[in-house]
Amino acid sequence: MSQSRDSSPGYEVADLSLAPAGRHQIRLAEHEMPGLMALRAEYGASRPLAGARIAGSLHMTVQTAVLIETLTALGAEVRWASCNIFSTQDEAAAAVVVGSGTPDDPQGVPVYAWKNETLPEYWWAASKIFDFTDGSGQPVAPTMILDDGGDATLLVHRGVEFEAAGAVPPAPREGDADYSEEYTVVLDTLRADLERDPQRWTRIAEGIRGVSEETTTGVHRLYQLASRGQLLFSAINVNDAVTKSKFDNRYGIRHSLPDGINRATDVLIGGKVAVVCGYGDVGKGAAEALRGQGARVIVTEIDPICALQAAMDGYQVATLDDVAGVGDIFITTTGNKDVILARHMEAMKDKAIVGNIGHFDNEIDMAGLARIPGIERVEIKPQVHEWVFPDASENADTTATEGGERRSIIVLSEGRLLNLGNATGHPSFVMSASFTNQVLAQIELYTAEPEETPAVHVLPKALDEKVARLHLDALGAELTELSKDQAEYLDVDVAGPYKPDHYRY
Amino acid sequence: MSQSRDSSPGYEVADLSLAPAGRHQIRLAEHEMPGLMALRAEYGASRPLAGARIAGSLHMTVQTAVLIETLTALGAEVRWASCNIFSTQDEAAAAVVVGSGTPDDPQGVPVYAWKNETLPEYWWAASKIFDFTDGSGQPVAPTMILDDGGDATLLVHRGVEFEAAGAVPPAPREGDADYSEEYTVVLDTLRADLERDPQRWTRIAEGIRGVSEETTTGVHRLYQLASRGQLLFSAINVNDAVTKSKFDNRYGIRHSLPDGINRATDVLIGGKVAVVCGYGDVGKGAAEALRGQGARVIVTEIDPICALQAAMDGYQVATLDDVAGVGDIFITTTGNKDVILARHMEAMKDKAIVGNIGHFDNEIDMAGLARIPGIERVEIKPQVHEWVFPDASENADTTATEGGERRSIIVLSEGRLLNLGNATGHPSFVMSASFTNQVLAQIELYTAEPEETPAVHVLPKALDEKVARLHLDALGAELTELSKDQAEYLDVDVAGPYKPDHYRY
Amino acid sequence: MSQSRDSSPGYEVADLSLAPAGRHQIRLAEHEMPGLMALRAEYGASRPLAGARIAGSLHMTVQTAVLIETLTALGAEVRWASCNIFSTQDEAAAAVVVGSGTPDDPQGVPVYAWKNETLPEYWWAASKIFDFTDGSGQPVAPTMILDDGGDATLLVHRGVEFEAAGAVPPAPREGDADYSEEYTVVLDTLRADLERDPQRWTRIAEGIRGVSEETTTGVHRLYQLASRGQLLFSAINVNDAVTKSKFDNRYGIRHSLPDGINRATDVLIGGKVAVVCGYGDVGKGAAEALRGQGARVIVTEIDPICALQAAMDGYQVATLDDVAGVGDIFITTTGNKDVILARHMEAMKDKAIVGNIGHFDNEIDMAGLARIPGIERVEIKPQVHEWVFPDASENADTTATEGGERRSIIVLSEGRLLNLGNATGHPSFVMSASFTNQVLAQIELYTAEPEETPAVHVLPKALDEKVARLHLDALGAELTELSKDQAEYLDVDVAGPYKPDHYRY
Amino acid sequence: MSQSRDSSPGYEVADLSLAPAGRHQIRLAEHEMPGLMALRAEYGASRPLAGARIAGSLHMTVQTAVLIETLTALGAEVRWASCNIFSTQDEAAAAVVVGSGTPDDPQGVPVYAWKNETLPEYWWAASKIFDFTDGSGQPVAPTMILDDGGDATLLVHRGVEFEAAGAVPPAPREGDADYSEEYTVVLDTLRADLERDPQRWTRIAEGIRGVSEETTTGVHRLYQLASRGQLLFSAINVNDAVTKSKFDNRYGIRHSLPDGINRATDVLIGGKVAVVCGYGDVGKGAAEALRGQGARVIVTEIDPICALQAAMDGYQVATLDDVAGVGDIFITTTGNKDVILARHMEAMKDKAIVGNIGHFDNEIDMAGLARIPGIERVEIKPQVHEWVFPDASENADTTATEGGERRSIIVLSEGRLLNLGNATGHPSFVMSASFTNQVLAQIELYTAEPEETPAVHVLPKALDEKVARLHLDALGAELTELSKDQAEYLDVDVAGPYKPDHYRY
Repeated sequence: MSQSRDSSPGYEVADLSLAPAGRHQIRLAEHEMPGLMALRAEYGASRPLAGARIAGSLHMTVQTAVLIETLTALGAEVRWASCNIFSTQDEAAAAVVVGSGTPDDPQGVPVYAWKNETLPEYWWAASKIFDFTDGSGQPVAPTMILDDGGDATLLVHRGVEFEAAGAVPPAPREGDADYSEEYTVVLDTLRADLERDPQRWTRIAEGIRGVSEETTTGVHRLYQLASRGQLLFSAINVNDAVTKSKFDNRYGIRHSLPDGINRATDVLIGGKVAVVCGYGDVGKGAAEALRGQGARVIVTEIDPICALQAAMDGYQVATLDDVAGVGDIFITTTGNKDVILARHMEAMKDKAIVGNIGHFDNEIDMAGLARIPGIERVEIKPQVHEWVFPDASENADTTATEGGERRSIIVLSEGRLLNLGNATGHPSFVMSASFTNQVLAQIELYTAEPEETPAVHVLPKALDEKVARLHLDALGAELTELSKDQAEYLDVDVAGPYKPDHYRY
Repeated sequence: MSQSRDSSPGYEVADLSLAPAGRHQIRLAEHEMPGLMALRAEYGASRPLAGARIAGSLHMTVQTAVLIETLTALGAEVRWASCNIFSTQDEAAAAVVVGSGTPDDPQGVPVYAWKNETLPEYWWAASKIFDFTDGSGQPVAPTMILDDGGDATLLVHRGVEFEAAGAVPPAPREGDADYSEEYTVVLDTLRADLERDPQRWTRIAEGIRGVSEETTTGVHRLYQLASRGQLLFSAINVNDAVTKSKFDNRYGIRHSLPDGINRATDVLIGGKVAVVCGYGDVGKGAAEALRGQGARVIVTEIDPICALQAAMDGYQVATLDDVAGVGDIFITTTGNKDVILARHMEAMKDKAIVGNIGHFDNEIDMAGLARIPGIERVEIKPQVHEWVFPDASENADTTATEGGERRSIIVLSEGRLLNLGNATGHPSFVMSASFTNQVLAQIELYTAEPEETPAVHVLPKALDEKVARLHLDALGAELTELSKDQAEYLDVDVAGPYKPDHYRY
Repeated sequence: MSQSRDSSPGYEVADLSLAPAGRHQIRLAEHEMPGLMALRAEYGASRPLAGARIAGSLHMTVQTAVLIETLTALGAEVRWASCNIFSTQDEAAAAVVVGSGTPDDPQGVPVYAWKNETLPEYWWAASKIFDFTDGSGQPVAPTMILDDGGDATLLVHRGVEFEAAGAVPPAPREGDADYSEEYTVVLDTLRADLERDPQRWTRIAEGIRGVSEETTTGVHRLYQLASRGQLLFSAINVNDAVTKSKFDNRYGIRHSLPDGINRATDVLIGGKVAVVCGYGDVGKGAAEALRGQGARVIVTEIDPICALQAAMDGYQVATLDDVAGVGDIFITTTGNKDVILARHMEAMKDKAIVGNIGHFDNEIDMAGLARIPGIERVEIKPQVHEWVFPDASENADTTATEGGERRSIIVLSEGRLLNLGNATGHPSFVMSASFTNQVLAQIELYTAEPEETPAVHVLPKALDEKVARLHLDALGAELTELSKDQAEYLDVDVAGPYKPDHYRY
Repeated sequence: MSQSRDSSPGYEVADLSLAPAGRHQIRLAEHEMPGLMALRAEYGASRPLAGARIAGSLHMTVQTAVLIETLTALGAEVRWASCNIFSTQDEAAAAVVVGSGTPDDPQGVPVYAWKNETLPEYWWAASKIFDFTDGSGQPVAPTMILDDGGDATLLVHRGVEFEAAGAVPPAPREGDADYSEEYTVVLDTLRADLERDPQRWTRIAEGIRGVSEETTTGVHRLYQLASRGQLLFSAINVNDAVTKSKFDNRYGIRHSLPDGINRATDVLIGGKVAVVCGYGDVGKGAAEALRGQGARVIVTEIDPICALQAAMDGYQVATLDDVAGVGDIFITTTGNKDVILARHMEAMKDKAIVGNIGHFDNEIDMAGLARIPGIERVEIKPQVHEWVFPDASENADTTATEGGERRSIIVLSEGRLLNLGNATGHPSFVMSASFTNQVLAQIELYTAEPEETPAVHVLPKALDEKVARLHLDALGAELTELSKDQAEYLDVDVAGPYKPDHYRY
């Protein structure tokens, strides 16, 4: 680990002196996170998480700081890492380590996160969040995981698997079909763990009551594990709470996509042709934001229902092969891999902008791009790179622009999430909705009876409605109350829930 | 029944001479109903509905004519009534009776529907659709109901209930809490049936394999019946297919709400304050349409999640009590009753427009309005009425306008669905999505094994996606295909379905 | 003239018995025309138009009835014709003839207009509006023209020209480059006038103080006349008042374009590709309306500034040759001729909808369409025609659809203004803004000193702002007042006008 | 002047070592400024500005660097200062000083600008841009001013006035009605000039052929000077070119307003109530941007026409006094002073955000805010300040929030232009439109005959259309060409201009 960071056995962050600046931002964020603040007011006295130990893996931002301090205010002990190598806001990490100085949080929380981690550093940190100790300093397992993307959950499941097998398998080699630089690092991390303590992950898994998971991708992995009977503990699918999926995915992206593009490039979005790959909730928010800025949006989709929605919302639906040469801005929102391939990028106009706001960096085939012979990568500024195609005279006559310069495209955040890499992620209000769900999920996991066969659950609709209710006041919205007579007519309770579980909003 | 209509034992419609005009419109509608036409192409030879007898209760419009003729092209025998006293397009009814003259439909279909039925006529017609006969002219039960709003299903269930009890109970009297003019007519209808044949409905119910239901309200009743163990046959909830609920409810309303207001009033929507009661799918489509015409939209909601969605979409969320005096246009979209009360209408501005596009006419308290002492109802044109409040000098000083005229409001379609009463209902393309689901549901009901315990089902997602797929070509949308590798990464089949069942779109 | 109409020497309309229905609609329209009603309140006592004789040529609708009765309330004597053969609302014409029975309008106004006039009838009516008589029954010239499209003004100018020349020239023959069926009728009309009275138009022109003109096209003609020194009297360009051009052209079209398409075709606009030819104010309103209904809009433009605006508003800008085969709906908004040619229509998809909302019917080359060998015109309903292209097997293999039917397109209002032909024109509120400008212009013309050299003028900005002010209350808008200090800082008067004349809004 | 900056007699900027970074950004900006690059291609050989000396006062950003280097490529000698103390991008200033190394620009251009100037530094720099020398090092007057906001023009006019009077008058004192800190600095600057050279400004004014001015406010001052007969040289009103006013004011603000708010606060705009003061072009762009992000927008206006436009666009129009307590975000766009007063800010909700994107910092009464007894100003980060109202317990019970904290508001850029202070100003594409107009205006000024009586002119419409044309290609827009026949019908030239001068777009 680099020596230029602030580190101790209890934490590792960029610079503790940033803590006051972080504290200032946390105070402002609290105003925009009415759901979390309402939970502190409601549960601060009863402390339903007293005794809980939470291993958290979620972008270490100012908003997450408010989440962490809500968890501690409700009684939990917490350790934290970021779930993305670029997403840590260093001042937030520092402030969390230093603590708020309130009675609930006198000494802060151990955090292992800084902006621009290497992959080995990232997975080292992911492992550190499980290192709780009891009063006597002995290792003790966490009671819950709070996860975003599933990396912390992955580590436990793979760790247990390899410990059972007695060894970590060799990594696929470069050139193998399933080779991935990152997975090699995961295996190295687990191998080091296994050498130190061959029962580490097994012990940890036994102590965990459950995980609450934030993202589509992470939830998908959980359902896969459950369907294969491999899920080691209960899971709550926070991602599919309406107040998470529709708000975080749609409204959050609507906010942070143009923000990321603007900070990265300062290019006028109005009048441009923007190609949005995918029209799920994230794609819907992306398309709305770009149209709201005056772009002409073209959507690509594989799902006929979402494609029909895009058409009915007035967007052209086309294939990327057909429009790669038409767009000025390309945004992936799919959660799938290989969405924008090197051949698409080669076909793009000079200075086309390419970014990902879906989930993993494999939505854009960065590896394929880098493999184009003669291509050159120029850093314009951190997280903004110009990829200059080889000279037309040598390769093909399509890569030179009129002025004789070599044609290039601009890639944001190296293909990782651009709203985190190029901007500051979702705004506090959106995260308040997601995180209020997370806290309610953690309380559910901690207070519910353990399941015989661990399964994946969504939050009860009543809690989902509660999250919404906690945010309406802040927007000046006045809710109408059902009369008893109307409630009977609808066959619902006056206090809700108001819709059947299959309702789509 | 009136003598001025064209009637025979086999049908009763307004005027058979309208058939050629209806046939012309049907031909144009077929172009806008690519889903149904694709089903005819796919199943016209195999005729999966051969032998089926379908009792249909659904607005007898031009689009429904295309549905009926698709059902017959797939082999079914069909009888039809409208599910709304105002919604029949007489030329469509006539054309269906006369038939298309194609091999599948040489002699047409019995229809009992005309524009502007009385309540007794309406329920008489609802009963007539069950009167199938076999080759020898003997009564035979239908095999399926195709329902919209649940009136046909209600008739069977109540009929069976009363036949079991041996008598139809007396109707609640005017003044009783549960009094309803319409329910009195239902009871009268069933009483007449019972007198003629005390086992009519029991026999009919025994023959029915299932019902496919089109609307939120009808589906809700089905779930109620099922939860009480009273459901007599299987039910398919067509309403909650994505290609129905999101398309019919949202995009259809976006189209037909301003169309209805325009045809009824010719009032500029731009610049006006429109109050939309409810922000479900119907409310979302209504709000989008009104904003798209330049209105300022205020939303009322009882569900905090939908309220939060409205706020995030940029609408003011308020209670009707607070904004009754602010709006120029009021639209109910809730499916609930007593949404706009007489006291709200009394508080409205002069010439405020009030209409319902939700489901039943009890969303607006028309009865309460009519009970205001001294109020006067003036017909401006059919389905558009001015309700003139009593003179200010006698009652209160708020009812006179500046010019000394008495203050009034404009009520559309007497509180019933304004898009049907004041316009021509949903456009063909939207109905194509709904009706393609209906046909697939009827095939499912007819070909599936009977259930031991009848339950309510939604259509399998694969069929939902199929409906979408059948409509994309017509919009020029180009769908992207998953690679095998991507499908594996997502853990789905290349051909779909692509989303988990809980996905909300 | 047909004998089936109600006619007398003082008027000719379809059916006087429609008057009560028209009166009812006029009363409702008055509520939506706050500008005109405010003028009646302000000027009803002083009657600034007492002694004026106004020859009006403007669509004879319910809204125009409110205009006419405002002019009479301000003291004027009025005669009226419609400026479009399809645009008369017969009940409005009847109500105006019968009169409102108020002190200002005891006996009504002579009107020569009915829905669906022939061209000879139209120009006969245009000539009749100049036939004022004095108390003794002697002919007397009007003092002003109130014109829409310039036909009344054209008649006077050509009449004077031919009277000076002593003869009406022969019409160009069919086949000549400048042949036009309508111009032949104009010449016939003037020839008949000249035969009866060789100084009719010269006398009329001498009495006219000026004309106020409503439309882009009419105004353009006036500027042409002025620039050639041929303008016979002063002209006020009402069209370019902001409260006319931006409101009538943009907001009115936003309302009435989808209304016309809906009433004509009932086709879902959502999801369709709509091609809007022209992106002036009319095109801007058209594009906004279609997008607001979920269409994907493509714009064609000849003006680079308007084209850039369209691009910045997020619309694709393309040429019609490139997108004729892509669109589902085509709307002309240009005021130019030959915008959609027969070759474009031949290239369109089956059942493409073609309509004009610009000005004259020559925006769409209807004559060229009719000349395609073997083409067939089928009336779907009045003002909606299907043009069926000749059978593919005989001509080309592009005209047959999949089902083997012949390919066709739908043309609205025979290429004339679809919002008038297929709907009811602009809504009252929009017309209130235009017509309030018209009334103020008529007062200006009547009270100003005659000009030595007649010129074309726009209304003073203070009057434009006054028109706006008279409409704000009705929308619940609260205007902020400048402080004296702020007004000085801006170097304007506290009461306005607030902007320089070149300001574009 | 501070010693920490890079300075020489020929320039003064923050840090010359930033030049390579600036050059990189300039290269990217050139791709987004197709109008300027097209001018270089068109005029690079003929060099129509050879011999011209241009004193430029305009935000010293990357885009301005492309403008400067276009002017030099066309032959001009240029000196530059920023027109705002916060708006300089230091790397752009450095790159301009160092020069591009191309034949046209071997040694760069003298620039006097850095981010965060003091007022005395600002006005010192404004004076330095006039210090051209001839080949022998003798002072020589510039031939043109290129101005933004009118400060350079003001300096010349006041300088000449005071030189004629023989002395600079004393500044108004603090407390005087017309006191302004900035004006005191202006007088000090001119006093120092006058002491060094009593004919400096008179000589400079004599050499100037004209000024091209960028902004509403600057143009307004020019019209005032002209109307008083005090304008010393010709002026071209670039602001009112359509391709400037509609693009820069509207589309630029649409882009940079949310960008500025986001970078300053990271607050979710969606769901919030945003109050936009003013609905001119800037206000229209602001409202569109905020609505596009899901805010509910309320507009305040003093002009009834703009107010009516706002209402017709679906916005609530209210007075600030009525909605000060309702909004979450307040944006001034008026160009007027005292728009948001201290009493409004006192009435705002906790953490309300207040910013100005109009012109001068006096739109928000910052001085009045600072005068509230007990108020505290906390810097959150540069250009973002929290103003904490005095403790409720001492003053009033409205200033404390629920949590007991003192209520505060967030003010952006200390009331100066937030898109410059908190973001990077307009994006390159928008500035390309403005600056292409500027270059064409400078060519007009340099090549036209001097006027006897200097006046203010707008650019000929043909040049305005040319600017649009030069930007269409980059957006993939395909322009339709008029046929000769159509052009004659419209009475315009095939090549344009296409619209009358009064046309509003």
